[in-house]
Amino acid sequence: MTIDKNTKILIVGLGVIGGGYAAALTEKGYTVGCITKEQKDIDYALEKGMISFGTTEVDEATVSWADLIVFALYPTVFIDWIEKYQRYFKPGTLITDVTGVKGSVVSRVQSMLRPDVEFISAHPMAGRERSGVEYSDPGVFKGANYIVTPTEKNSDEAIETCKNLGKILGFARISVLSPDKHDEMIAFLSQLTHCIAVTLMTCNEAEGLEKYTGDSFRDLTRIAKINDAMWSELFLMNKDALLREMDAFINEFESLRQMLIDGDREGMRAMMRRSTERRSLFDKPA
Amino acid sequence: MTIDKNTKILIVGLGVIGGGYAAALTEKGYTVGCITKEQKDIDYALEKGMISFGTTEVDEATVSWADLIVFALYPTVFIDWIEKYQRYFKPGTLITDVTGVKGSVVSRVQSMLRPDVEFISAHPMAGRERSGVEYSDPGVFKGANYIVTPTEKNSDEAIETCKNLGKILGFARISVLSPDKHDEMIAFLSQLTHCIAVTLMTCNEAEGLEKYTGDSFRDLTRIAKINDAMWSELFLMNKDALLREMDAFINEFESLRQMLIDGDREGMRAMMRRSTERRSLFDKPA
Repeated sequence: MTIDKNTKILIVGLGVIGGGYAAALTEKGYTVGCITKEQKDIDYALEKGMISFGTTEVDEATVSWADLIVFALYPTVFIDWIEKYQRYFKPGTLITDVTGVKGSVVSRVQSMLRPDVEFISAHPMAGRERSGVEYSDPGVFKGANYIVTPTEKNSDEAIETCKNLGKILGFARISVLSPDKHDEMIAFLSQLTHCIAVTLMTCNEAEGLEKYTGDSFRDLTRIAKINDAMWSELFLMNKDALLREMDAFINEFESLRQMLIDGDREGMRAMMRRSTERRSLFDKPA
Repeated sequence: MTIDKNTKILIVGLGVIGGGYAAALTEKGYTVGCITKEQKDIDYALEKGMISFGTTEVDEATVSWADLIVFALYPTVFIDWIEKYQRYFKPGTLITDVTGVKGSVVSRVQSMLRPDVEFISAHPMAGRERSGVEYSDPGVFKGANYIVTPTEKNSDEAIETCKNLGKILGFARISVLSPDKHDEMIAFLSQLTHCIAVTLMTCNEAEGLEKYTGDSFRDLTRIAKINDAMWSELFLMNKDALLREMDAFINEFESLRQMLIDGDREGMRAMMRRSTERRSLFDKPA
């Protein structure tokens, strides 16, 4: 399938990311329905003009209405949903997701999925510290990265459609990675950073520190406000890759610690110069 | 002394912080002179109207002109300067600094200083990732913290004058801490965060990661662009306090790692909830 203005798009799970998708797609003139748990979230999205309709019930009429379905659920909830409701899909439906880990999710969904429906997985690398549809904002996709993670089970057409969805949503850079490469990358760039922020926030409980803080501490702990249900699930689903990155970080940190003990000023300076040079690669494109 | 519009202020060291002080004070109508190494920095500051005059030579006429002198030098350079040139101070001069570590610096300077000159130490908690007067911006002081670190050798009057300087510069919150408490606090809030950012930036050298990065990685590594000469000196001058904070961080990080290995989802969630709750204390005042 290709996405055009007649394509009927269903969002399953109207949280901060699902809501952002809904708002961006409606704004671009697409017809967007949604299924989500809470009526209040549907009421909010209708009032804000983010969706055309919504329901809290998973029923065949709604599911089979859609040509393209985006699952914006926690990984385990997504897998359960497919198991339970995939019988409702219309033949030829294309489904995609926004899940933050891929290895275990993509293979499980693809292996149980009906052969007349295709699942092409993707990860929008944009989030917010708050959860809930009322914090959704399609503006966070601008300048952000969108990663499609196909397997050998995917058609070229579905990969193209999924990349096109990323473009329509407004992402700045669309990439393609295998699920395993994705998980390795995400363990470092996203999961390790969250582990560090949470640790930094909890390793010193002295009172009154906020009176003296500068911007560097605030920056390093912005993501320490964290959705514990979702992130604990993401960490556990990517345990091996995340442990490898945690160990690499600890090793490097210990070597800095040793240089400090040894008074090895030149060693510390060399590490800082490597850091400074490498960081310039990561500046946000203007 | 009290600061009024007749107070002659000398900045020694026209870098990113010294330059910010000069610009802020000149803007408020004070007369600001400077001594700094490079003529090009003086030319820049004169052209931008940040100072009334500047010289690259440390001479008695310039030093004794000043009522209040702010040293914006690296710690070791500051100590050497006092040793070498304190004979030039006019009796009754008040001197202060912007040094990022206090314990060793304050006691060394105060113990060698002429009895007719008072040194009251302070730390403006505002910086930039770039160094040099051309990156100085008095705007970074707005909303930031300013910490006065007196000892029993300081007079109440000097402490008040130093707090007042912080107010004139535009800092949002002025606090008072002993040098040791300051160093303990700074080891955690500033030095540990720089250690973490540098480590995160250098612990994984895979190519192409910048294509996939999100804002969390960018936030955690903003300060990984680091002035290696200055920060290695600050780390070494505060070695014991910094090592204690590094060890506390490693312990907490290891316990998160162990929960991940054990699949202890509830333990991870509890840590994340503590983190989320504690982080809200550190939100920037609106």
